[in-house]
Amino acid sequence: MNISKFVAPEIIFGQGSLSQIGESAARIGASKVFLVSDEDVISAGWVDKALHYLHAVGLETEIYSSLTSNPKDFEVLEGARHYVASGCDAIVAVGGGSPTDVAKAVAILASNGGELRDYEGINRISRPLPPMVIAPSTAGAGSEVSPFAIIVDTERKLKMSIISKSLVPDIAIVDPELLRTKDAKLAAATGMDALTHGIESYVSLAATPLTDIHACKAIQLIAANLRRAVADRGDMEANTNMAMASLTAGIAFSNAILGATHAMTHQVDGLLDQHHGEANASILPHVMEFNLSACPERFKHIAWSLGKDVRNTGQEEGARLAIEGIRELIADIGLAKGLGAMGLREEFIPLLSRNALNDACLVTNPRNATVDDIEAIFRKAM
Amino acid sequence: MNISKFVAPEIIFGQGSLSQIGESAARIGASKVFLVSDEDVISAGWVDKALHYLHAVGLETEIYSSLTSNPKDFEVLEGARHYVASGCDAIVAVGGGSPTDVAKAVAILASNGGELRDYEGINRISRPLPPMVIAPSTAGAGSEVSPFAIIVDTERKLKMSIISKSLVPDIAIVDPELLRTKDAKLAAATGMDALTHGIESYVSLAATPLTDIHACKAIQLIAANLRRAVADRGDMEANTNMAMASLTAGIAFSNAILGATHAMTHQVDGLLDQHHGEANASILPHVMEFNLSACPERFKHIAWSLGKDVRNTGQEEGARLAIEGIRELIADIGLAKGLGAMGLREEFIPLLSRNALNDACLVTNPRNATVDDIEAIFRKAM
Repeated sequence: MNISKFVAPEIIFGQGSLSQIGESAARIGASKVFLVSDEDVISAGWVDKALHYLHAVGLETEIYSSLTSNPKDFEVLEGARHYVASGCDAIVAVGGGSPTDVAKAVAILASNGGELRDYEGINRISRPLPPMVIAPSTAGAGSEVSPFAIIVDTERKLKMSIISKSLVPDIAIVDPELLRTKDAKLAAATGMDALTHGIESYVSLAATPLTDIHACKAIQLIAANLRRAVADRGDMEANTNMAMASLTAGIAFSNAILGATHAMTHQVDGLLDQHHGEANASILPHVMEFNLSACPERFKHIAWSLGKDVRNTGQEEGARLAIEGIRELIADIGLAKGLGAMGLREEFIPLLSRNALNDACLVTNPRNATVDDIEAIFRKAM
Repeated sequence: MNISKFVAPEIIFGQGSLSQIGESAARIGASKVFLVSDEDVISAGWVDKALHYLHAVGLETEIYSSLTSNPKDFEVLEGARHYVASGCDAIVAVGGGSPTDVAKAVAILASNGGELRDYEGINRISRPLPPMVIAPSTAGAGSEVSPFAIIVDTERKLKMSIISKSLVPDIAIVDPELLRTKDAKLAAATGMDALTHGIESYVSLAATPLTDIHACKAIQLIAANLRRAVADRGDMEANTNMAMASLTAGIAFSNAILGATHAMTHQVDGLLDQHHGEANASILPHVMEFNLSACPERFKHIAWSLGKDVRNTGQEEGARLAIEGIRELIADIGLAKGLGAMGLREEFIPLLSRNALNDACLVTNPRNATVDDIEAIFRKAM
């Protein structure tokens, strides 16, 4: 018996679609909206736009933006207190993966109580969450469609993965216009995150035909558009294609889950507070080397999706072209940097490796990895 | 501003997944389930199985099966009376497109009152529907994921298209085991319906990258599995692939809508009471001929998806290979029959053509069609 489950929120996609955020929030039953964002997105003017559309349909609003990249447990706790005190009844996020994951985690604490650690792992949320609408401002995290909330546990210095179907928002509003104000470095790092989602979900043990088509579409779109999007932030065709890539990669990993790269970067992110996408760039090629023997035909297909000519190559040779293609892309967008240069010290590797073994994302990695395997990959990625 | 919307229900897929129907109905809040099916599905034993799983989680049930292929308005009215009188609070369908569409239409009348004609067209349902779980027993209709309910108006002798987001069920349970008991003729006709969904949604004016990947996957799976599924009803690999094809085609047309073939078959179905898939087989190649000039590159890609070698062909030549491939497939599965042989008389063509012009599916056809164009296609399809 091989039964798979597939979920996706309602999706509104296209330039100008932020204009539907008021009607969307009203439709899911909001009267007072808790709007989560961050200072960069506020400065770029997107929160003012969202407020305009929310107020236009008669909704009250409360803004919460006391959060950082790689959002922390205490920021969520503060947000949940704020939510309860302000009498809100729905949650809207306008921003990248950080505000979105804070919005989701606030939803958990506000309706289920306790502390975030109680919900770490898979399907540990029992009571229904407030309705949620998410409008991403980056093309990478995919959190607008996913059942994931990833929050730093500041005591343990690692990222907790909270995975539950009720974390899939009700409506995702993907407006590529919001990508215009992202700088090139953020475009590169978030694009790398989306690419890692596409690749890890395509080779995941939980992949299905329904997740495969989303993962492959993401890889193809990123191969064809990420360099352009990084080189020219005003290229709206590239931005639109990257927004679609992030969305399809998000649908893929929401249902196929991820692999060793994410299990490892969740530890690095918790320790170093670098951008998650940059950590992915350092680790992904080495995890691909490790995984290659488990599913060479899938890696060969990734090479084809990256634009490599694999017509006259054998299985392993074709599969290796996938790793070559990923390394070229990482170099071209300026992310070819080791974990050492990012500040990771050798002595942390044993602890990070042990913690990675407990991350929910490792379960679906196509090749079984021991703590020694993970340590070896960390060392290569230095 | 080019904004698209995408919806899909939660999907549970795989051999044996019918076992989750009780837990699924309970999860969406059911206490007494109105189970819609038909005599063939009951004889095959699937309703008894479903009842077992529903009763196992403590749910009460009421069965409704007074319906025919191409379900009729009066069957829905009777079902809605039955639903209200029996005090049910959720709807489950186990069966093909007919029981599913009756289940949806019962949901409309039971919660919104009035008569079905009041809801014909797009987004005319205002009040929420009872929660719904659908388990399809055929690989074709795609109604388990779609916002469509297609019901015969017996007075006007045509099929009404009722299209509304609230008709998307809460949960679709797609268990390929249920396909085992379908006979070869039904496998051919329903497979042809799924193929028509894939092709019409791929060339639809409302197609998006998100619908394209689903439409293409459906066409590829059908090209590779429909002949096998018709030849050997016990071939579970072919059945499973056809179940996935029907599902992805359903997701595609749910969001890209359809085209002239469906606008026309909806009229034929209402008049002749033939299987909808057979009517599609008669009309689709002629509609493809008509549409070819509007998007030859898309038709060439369909030819590739059907397994045609299009590497050294020009655009139009490649596009024509798609029509050739469809004709071959239709012949191989025994559906190459004209509308005349199905009982259509010439004198009905003007009326059917005028009615087709008002069908909601015509709006997204890639080439604008006048009543004369539709008449000409009907005559070719005789």
